[in-house]
Amino acid sequence: MDDRGPPHSTTQVRVRYAETDQMGVVSHANYLVYFELARVDLLAAAGIRYRDLEGRGFLLAVTEATCRYLGGARYDDPLAVEAWLVERGAARIVLAYRIRHEETSRVLVEGSTELACLGDNFRPRRMPDDVCSALDRLARGNVTP
Amino acid sequence: MDDRGPPHSTTQVRVRYAETDQMGVVSHANYLVYFELARVDLLAAAGIRYRDLEGRGFLLAVTEATCRYLGGARYDDPLAVEAWLVERGAARIVLAYRIRHEETSRVLVEGSTELACLGDNFRPRRMPDDVCSALDRLARGNVTP
Amino acid sequence: MDDRGPPHSTTQVRVRYAETDQMGVVSHANYLVYFELARVDLLAAAGIRYRDLEGRGFLLAVTEATCRYLGGARYDDPLAVEAWLVERGAARIVLAYRIRHEETSRVLVEGSTELACLGDNFRPRRMPDDVCSALDRLARGNVTP
Amino acid sequence: MDDRGPPHSTTQVRVRYAETDQMGVVSHANYLVYFELARVDLLAAAGIRYRDLEGRGFLLAVTEATCRYLGGARYDDPLAVEAWLVERGAARIVLAYRIRHEETSRVLVEGSTELACLGDNFRPRRMPDDVCSALDRLARGNVTP
Repeated sequence: MDDRGPPHSTTQVRVRYAETDQMGVVSHANYLVYFELARVDLLAAAGIRYRDLEGRGFLLAVTEATCRYLGGARYDDPLAVEAWLVERGAARIVLAYRIRHEETSRVLVEGSTELACLGDNFRPRRMPDDVCSALDRLARGNVTP
Repeated sequence: MDDRGPPHSTTQVRVRYAETDQMGVVSHANYLVYFELARVDLLAAAGIRYRDLEGRGFLLAVTEATCRYLGGARYDDPLAVEAWLVERGAARIVLAYRIRHEETSRVLVEGSTELACLGDNFRPRRMPDDVCSALDRLARGNVTP
Repeated sequence: MDDRGPPHSTTQVRVRYAETDQMGVVSHANYLVYFELARVDLLAAAGIRYRDLEGRGFLLAVTEATCRYLGGARYDDPLAVEAWLVERGAARIVLAYRIRHEETSRVLVEGSTELACLGDNFRPRRMPDDVCSALDRLARGNVTP
Repeated sequence: MDDRGPPHSTTQVRVRYAETDQMGVVSHANYLVYFELARVDLLAAAGIRYRDLEGRGFLLAVTEATCRYLGGARYDDPLAVEAWLVERGAARIVLAYRIRHEETSRVLVEGSTELACLGDNFRPRRMPDDVCSALDRLARGNVTP
């Protein structure tokens, strides 16, 4: 967590060779995977281990994703993926992301995902109270970036 | 191509085992890859082979992507990915997509991508005239879905 | 199925853009995914739908894989992936694969996988009788390639 | 680098959600990607940055890969991927790998890759002298594990 803008986590990712395509930059679908890594770290910063959440019978499934590609990340580039909470509902959260080249600080990708909390059979399910509280603690002090 | 709605191509995709994740459905980033397959087929329907376009020094790079996930595709599901042209600029196109389960016709994912035409060094470059004409022929007769 | 060599299935695969890497050829791990597609088709040729097998509580998990890369497949290349049965045990099968460029017939990749039949908790489990019989019918007439 | 067995590098990898498949474990092709990460780190330990090597016009392309799967890695598992040099030729190297669960030390996957050094047009090319020397320094002191 760092202290400028909304409380966000920062995840370091180094671009893998297999993630590039013949354009010589990261294949665009892979940034959604980077978002996923950042999401898990943001939750962890709030004290929620996603793996345990699934163990308790709650899934967070992506219901919407957006991505703006401003520049291409190249093989072996060190990236910093920031993630923060935008909205918290009873069974739904919205997160935003920003991916920078870690050395130049240049923003390469921005995006968001909406996640639904699901239980058995993929039915919507209210998130557990402790998770809601943890997310609210995370968001509190939240300021517009 | 089929004749209802805007002129769109339909690409058949069968879900691969490796594309699922432990939720038992297709990992969400993979739908962007399905969009890519559909995009190539849509261009082909217009007489444009994407591979040849790159051979001529033009890249179509995704600059924006959106995805709404309405249901999860499962391993071995037969999918129909529809793609159509929404906008055609001098160096930029916008496409829309709809993924249905081929047997039930249920819509699983909807989305869009904006693509920029780039030349050497990833600089914006006007699309060649024959490509513009082909895309316009494709769009003509285009009606709101 | 075609009639030269051991009874094998042939699966057509077209190389996806996202499967290439910055070398301009298919990233080497992806060929294992092509093998998987071919494996499913080989089983289907024997009357076994892999999806149903899992539904009955049997998993076929890869326990060994080998791959020899003789040439690189490029974006949009049409590939033919041949698969055939090499060994059939009670809870274990060995398959071999050959990937050719469909137009030039050039062999690009050869490989094999050993699969273990597993039940609940990933414990080895004898394959069902109907599956064994189907595989044996598939292998019969099997000659050295 | 650690001091038991042949001089090897150890790369830490945490299993990503997108790397699992519906079996609930890492999809088997992804271990080859983990090998790739480990390979880059092993070369780095020898003072060779793979990215720079490509910048100088040398590619290391996988020509053979083997993998033995002894156990499945699960989502969020912390893995340690060890890599070491097995053979060094003029235009060819062979590396071996071992993937352990970092907490239990259980070996999950073992494997190897042969890599060819290629120049323009994917023709074999002798590795540069400084790279050969660096690899030899790496291997020296090499003992059977």
